[in-house]
Amino acid sequence: MGKLEELKQLQKEIVLINRSAALLQWDLETYLPEEGSEGRAEQISTLSAMVHDRLVSDELYNLLRGLESEKLGDIDAIMVKRLLHDVERERKLPREFVEELSRVSSRAFSSWKKAKENNDFGIFEKDLENIVELKKKEAEYVSYREHPYDALIDEYEEGMTTKKVFDIFEKLKPQLINLIKKIEASPNYNDKDEPLFAEGSFPKEKQFELVKDVSKRIGLDDSVSRVDLAPHPFTISLGSKDVRITTRIVGDSLYSFTSTVHEAGHALYELNLPEKFEFTVLHDAPSLGIHESQSRFWENMIGRGKSFWKFYFEKFKGLTGTNKSFEEFYKAVNKVYPGFIRTEADEVHYCLHIILRFELEKGLLEGSIKVKDLPRIWNEKFKEYFGVDVSKDSEGVLQDIHWSHASFGYFPTYAIGTIYAAQIYEAMKKNVHDAEEQIEKGEFEKIAKWLKENIHKYGRLLLADEIVQKACGEGFNSDNYISYLTQKYSEIYQLS
Amino acid sequence: MGKLEELKQLQKEIVLINRSAALLQWDLETYLPEEGSEGRAEQISTLSAMVHDRLVSDELYNLLRGLESEKLGDIDAIMVKRLLHDVERERKLPREFVEELSRVSSRAFSSWKKAKENNDFGIFEKDLENIVELKKKEAEYVSYREHPYDALIDEYEEGMTTKKVFDIFEKLKPQLINLIKKIEASPNYNDKDEPLFAEGSFPKEKQFELVKDVSKRIGLDDSVSRVDLAPHPFTISLGSKDVRITTRIVGDSLYSFTSTVHEAGHALYELNLPEKFEFTVLHDAPSLGIHESQSRFWENMIGRGKSFWKFYFEKFKGLTGTNKSFEEFYKAVNKVYPGFIRTEADEVHYCLHIILRFELEKGLLEGSIKVKDLPRIWNEKFKEYFGVDVSKDSEGVLQDIHWSHASFGYFPTYAIGTIYAAQIYEAMKKNVHDAEEQIEKGEFEKIAKWLKENIHKYGRLLLADEIVQKACGEGFNSDNYISYLTQKYSEIYQLS
Repeated sequence: MGKLEELKQLQKEIVLINRSAALLQWDLETYLPEEGSEGRAEQISTLSAMVHDRLVSDELYNLLRGLESEKLGDIDAIMVKRLLHDVERERKLPREFVEELSRVSSRAFSSWKKAKENNDFGIFEKDLENIVELKKKEAEYVSYREHPYDALIDEYEEGMTTKKVFDIFEKLKPQLINLIKKIEASPNYNDKDEPLFAEGSFPKEKQFELVKDVSKRIGLDDSVSRVDLAPHPFTISLGSKDVRITTRIVGDSLYSFTSTVHEAGHALYELNLPEKFEFTVLHDAPSLGIHESQSRFWENMIGRGKSFWKFYFEKFKGLTGTNKSFEEFYKAVNKVYPGFIRTEADEVHYCLHIILRFELEKGLLEGSIKVKDLPRIWNEKFKEYFGVDVSKDSEGVLQDIHWSHASFGYFPTYAIGTIYAAQIYEAMKKNVHDAEEQIEKGEFEKIAKWLKENIHKYGRLLLADEIVQKACGEGFNSDNYISYLTQKYSEIYQLS
Repeated sequence: MGKLEELKQLQKEIVLINRSAALLQWDLETYLPEEGSEGRAEQISTLSAMVHDRLVSDELYNLLRGLESEKLGDIDAIMVKRLLHDVERERKLPREFVEELSRVSSRAFSSWKKAKENNDFGIFEKDLENIVELKKKEAEYVSYREHPYDALIDEYEEGMTTKKVFDIFEKLKPQLINLIKKIEASPNYNDKDEPLFAEGSFPKEKQFELVKDVSKRIGLDDSVSRVDLAPHPFTISLGSKDVRITTRIVGDSLYSFTSTVHEAGHALYELNLPEKFEFTVLHDAPSLGIHESQSRFWENMIGRGKSFWKFYFEKFKGLTGTNKSFEEFYKAVNKVYPGFIRTEADEVHYCLHIILRFELEKGLLEGSIKVKDLPRIWNEKFKEYFGVDVSKDSEGVLQDIHWSHASFGYFPTYAIGTIYAAQIYEAMKKNVHDAEEQIEKGEFEKIAKWLKENIHKYGRLLLADEIVQKACGEGFNSDNYISYLTQKYSEIYQLS
């Protein structure tokens, strides 16, 4: 067996074990009987350890090193490069470090939960300090060119740097704040929190029906996908022809519907990854940001757009008996409101939530911000960007799970994805001339096809920014995003 | 780490991988999107190969051999013995043989399916010949004392021999035929095939409701178990606190209900295995026969009993609006009829189906029966035992999947289980004095507790026959079974 063949076999085994572990996870979140969770955790960690052992093995490393200096075809050369990138990162972290991080973050997860429940940052503070110290250490182990935070971002967003993110965010921040001020000053601004549907008017089964309808329209065929209920919506790939999403039904709201549109965007990406790359590191998205661009594209640009609602309003009207007019409904779907919670944020506020977190993470890594000062700084920044006082830490600095999981550098990918989504939306509209007409008919095939041919088909062959460059004519740039928001919300709020 | 500790760790890893593979299987049969099946097969075979590699490894074998000669506690000594039994069997089969058997049986499975569809044994004949030759070879590899078939039975029913099974079956066969003749001669015998419920009177949701009700009553609590729909009913253990069953809903029939009672019996066994044995070879039943005794116990002795229907008849009446009287209904549930299909057989005919197959398997292994003569011999025996002419092989020699899977020696475990079930039922009634009253109230806790303390609690510490000996005062014996049948059906058909 040649070295390349050997490498492919090793990768295939890793992928197959990983997908088995993914099913254990999917089942844990959907159908596992309550008391099975302890046993399940052991199953997952056994398979994860098997994957990790294979990834850091000398066998794989030596094979990759050997192949690196051989003359390979273009694609195989990139495959070797990408896998070596991942393997080297893993191998740079000493086993004791990985074990300590795992211990500390499982403790931190408990204390974060307790802190959030009790609205008391103090309960979490010490564990978070330990995590920040370990993440600084991790950055040193992994090494970086300019900024320690670069090493952390790179885990989720290969090729992206702190500086690039910082520059874009610095430009975007005042633009967003400015737009929000204009909206809030508009006579059409309504700061009341009104439910979209009357209580009991949108039963579970009807919601689930619509959820299935929209995911199918986006391209998740029953033969390769399914939708189940779970406490948190997610997308999971259990095979190239088995990509599943979950949703959650929350009262009589639009939540299950919009969250499904979001997850369907992720799932479509996974389903469209090139078959020829299967069982290799290339059968993947190059970054979380570009993955998120696909979910945001469908959730926001399509799923909160006027054309989309021209199609769906009648269905919702029929099912829920809403007495809103189309214009009222469309405005309610796109209501701008300075809420505390990131996951409930509207399109205009969303990136400000991320910018705030990015600034804190960057400061923590540099040492310019101390953990103990986080609640104060969070609230100050929140007041500055959102114009609102945070009254409790559970709705402020304690709201997200990420830090307790030691996931630093993850937050920026949400904004990167949102910004990419606007760039991709612009490019798509230039190329699919009847896109709006298609959307108005509830037909998304042409759009999905364009995404496949311009984003999905590369797998991990190119970096995220290279894909966006090819598809949109330029890399990471928030100009499209701000003009998209300005145009859309100027119309909704009739800004002058 | 001591050797014993090392052995336990190896076993634990094997168990955890096995359970992960079991989830892959469960999902394959319940929720997997259609096109995911190819990828799923690769996942399953990857994990199975990992288990197999560990089981036949020199590391495990040498450890066991070393421990065998050490002074161990009673339980650990048995654990070593049982695992060595399994490991040695696996190690005796050369890799090339295992691969050939797997190749041949996957071909045989295809040809069997085609043969059954086309009602043409010739399509399957050559592949079955190959399988029989390989099974003869397997018996030689594994080795045996008296009869080559012993080596095959032992895989499913450790400690059982061809002679013991033969002797019991030879005694039982005329008794069953005799009882059936009496029933058929009775003026109360009805050979018409009438449906139990009117068409459309027992909708899916109502069936599923009852299925959940009965499984909960038997002891499958939601916190440790669940019921899902699948093309074939089965029980699967995904953890000591996660044992699942499936059912199938077939028209307006009792099928989903009785098959659930059957599977719940299996599941209760799994759930009651002693926690202290978890992650070792002892956390298992000692044989398929004793496992089947538990499903048969609940399905037949309890679930087709008069007391049981005293409780459930009213529920069914309310739900389905049947106009049958209790007596009519109870008789219909226990209708005796010489059907061709084993899986649809009544209690009286069931073991005759097995005896027929056992005689054929034994003859094939001895060489006294040739594969090409199977259809003829099947039909002759069927006429002799059932009094009916088999009109087509798809309802005769081709009806079961087992031979195409190379599962020889498996069939007898169904009858062994049925016979054990009658012995266990007798013993239970002697000890749980108000058993019938409990059943009439739909309360099964006392009975389940007795089973736990007399059957389930041993795990694989004792052999099946040793457990039955302890619980019932004697080992494998069909006397209880025949007297149970005689009494029950004499009453139903008012035999003199």
